[in-house]
Amino acid sequence: MCAPSLIHEVRLDLSRRHFLTTLGASIAGVAAASEAERAQEKPVRLPKGFRDIYDLTHTLSPTTPVFPAFKPMQMVERFTIARDGFYANELTFGEHTGTHLDGPIHFVNGGMSADRIPVDRMFAPLAVVSIKARADKDADATVRVDDLIGWEKTHGRIPAGAFVAMYSGWDARIADARRFLNPDAKKTLHFPGFSEEAARFLVKERDIVGVGVDTLSLDTGAAQKFVAHLAFLGAGKYGVELLASLGAVPPAGATLIVGGPKHHGASGGPVRVLAVA
Amino acid sequence: MCAPSLIHEVRLDLSRRHFLTTLGASIAGVAAASEAERAQEKPVRLPKGFRDIYDLTHTLSPTTPVFPAFKPMQMVERFTIARDGFYANELTFGEHTGTHLDGPIHFVNGGMSADRIPVDRMFAPLAVVSIKARADKDADATVRVDDLIGWEKTHGRIPAGAFVAMYSGWDARIADARRFLNPDAKKTLHFPGFSEEAARFLVKERDIVGVGVDTLSLDTGAAQKFVAHLAFLGAGKYGVELLASLGAVPPAGATLIVGGPKHHGASGGPVRVLAVA
Repeated sequence: MCAPSLIHEVRLDLSRRHFLTTLGASIAGVAAASEAERAQEKPVRLPKGFRDIYDLTHTLSPTTPVFPAFKPMQMVERFTIARDGFYANELTFGEHTGTHLDGPIHFVNGGMSADRIPVDRMFAPLAVVSIKARADKDADATVRVDDLIGWEKTHGRIPAGAFVAMYSGWDARIADARRFLNPDAKKTLHFPGFSEEAARFLVKERDIVGVGVDTLSLDTGAAQKFVAHLAFLGAGKYGVELLASLGAVPPAGATLIVGGPKHHGASGGPVRVLAVA
Repeated sequence: MCAPSLIHEVRLDLSRRHFLTTLGASIAGVAAASEAERAQEKPVRLPKGFRDIYDLTHTLSPTTPVFPAFKPMQMVERFTIARDGFYANELTFGEHTGTHLDGPIHFVNGGMSADRIPVDRMFAPLAVVSIKARADKDADATVRVDDLIGWEKTHGRIPAGAFVAMYSGWDARIADARRFLNPDAKKTLHFPGFSEEAARFLVKERDIVGVGVDTLSLDTGAAQKFVAHLAFLGAGKYGVELLASLGAVPPAGATLIVGGPKHHGASGGPVRVLAVA
């Protein structure tokens, strides 16, 4: 499912980030804090035989791509250590910003709000369905029923209570909002998503808690109607959009952990999404 | 560690919440959505022998208590299903609102920002240290070194890479901001926290990744200086404040999972905190 070249890219990206982190710490030049941080670098062993942790969350910033209807997140420094003794910011953003969750209420009158999703649905066997080969050539590619059947031929039936994620490779475009949204001359967006047929198959023929994509939407960018959103959220499932690093996580066998938003009445909100294997 | 009466209170609260949820769904009157939700209610089995999930996160709302220096969170409805085809809000809040994380940078120039905390530190053996018996009588009660030693006499040495949480019973006051902040006539706040000695003991004599409290601050409300914050964050540890339901989770043996904030340069931010046992 993951081309070796992609894994290599992810590793390069990780080491580049580590380099930038190290560089950042040197520039800051606060030896005491960095030493304390280094002392903590030995990994905490996961219990019960889990070995690997994956962070499927993009770092959110004012440059993170958002749907044209939304404003980018804003961050205003309200307190500084020099003046106030501590550093703190005020944040303003739409609920559907960054790596974020869609609760059923986002599209369904009277549907479940994100804060009320039972926590046992936030732990789920993760099935990553790659359509990267097609998405590389066709920005309007969709997850089709035969992609799901193909995944099952390799990995067995989609497990009960699964979270099914579309991996299109789109997360590699995250730093360039124009390439991520990919509008044409008429401002129609072009990026991959779930087909209506695949969405209906998953909610009717399989037992899932939710679905995810590495693009901005469960639907394709060019979709005229929110057919995938309505099929999934209308069936009480949740969605997660703007997932990161799906190409690095095993396509079967990992467990997803969704640190979902918990503000009252949430249509959705930024999430921390982790996977363990 | 957990008085039976408290467990009973938690259970009452859970059934009350379930009742309110059911009531809310009936009022909304959308049979289709609630049926879909009911169909999903069978629990997702956790892998590798975990049986129980605990949600240690308060529901955040404009009435959630905040430090007097901060504004309550604001939520503005920007999109409605009737007008726009979907429902979505815009949120504004300080980073230290609701159940939230403090990164080292919150108090340490050049310290690690919350988005850069390595994910392996977000999984930690959880040690819950109860000072509820004293806090019930004295709002200025602190976690002392002998409380930590007492926990170890019962449960064994604090595990490597642990997250140590103070349980004072303060979460029962969350619905009443005045009782939660507990100001006296001179506006000095009174609620429990970590003593400086206990903080120094944990960062020097034990191997922890972070600490938590069920109050608004790692320090007591009456503390004149941020001695506990400075001891913990100065040593590169993170803090989590406004934890919920610590009285319901086993005092030893559970694994904490912190769905930490990931906006660039975060001094901290709302988190989803879960525990599994």
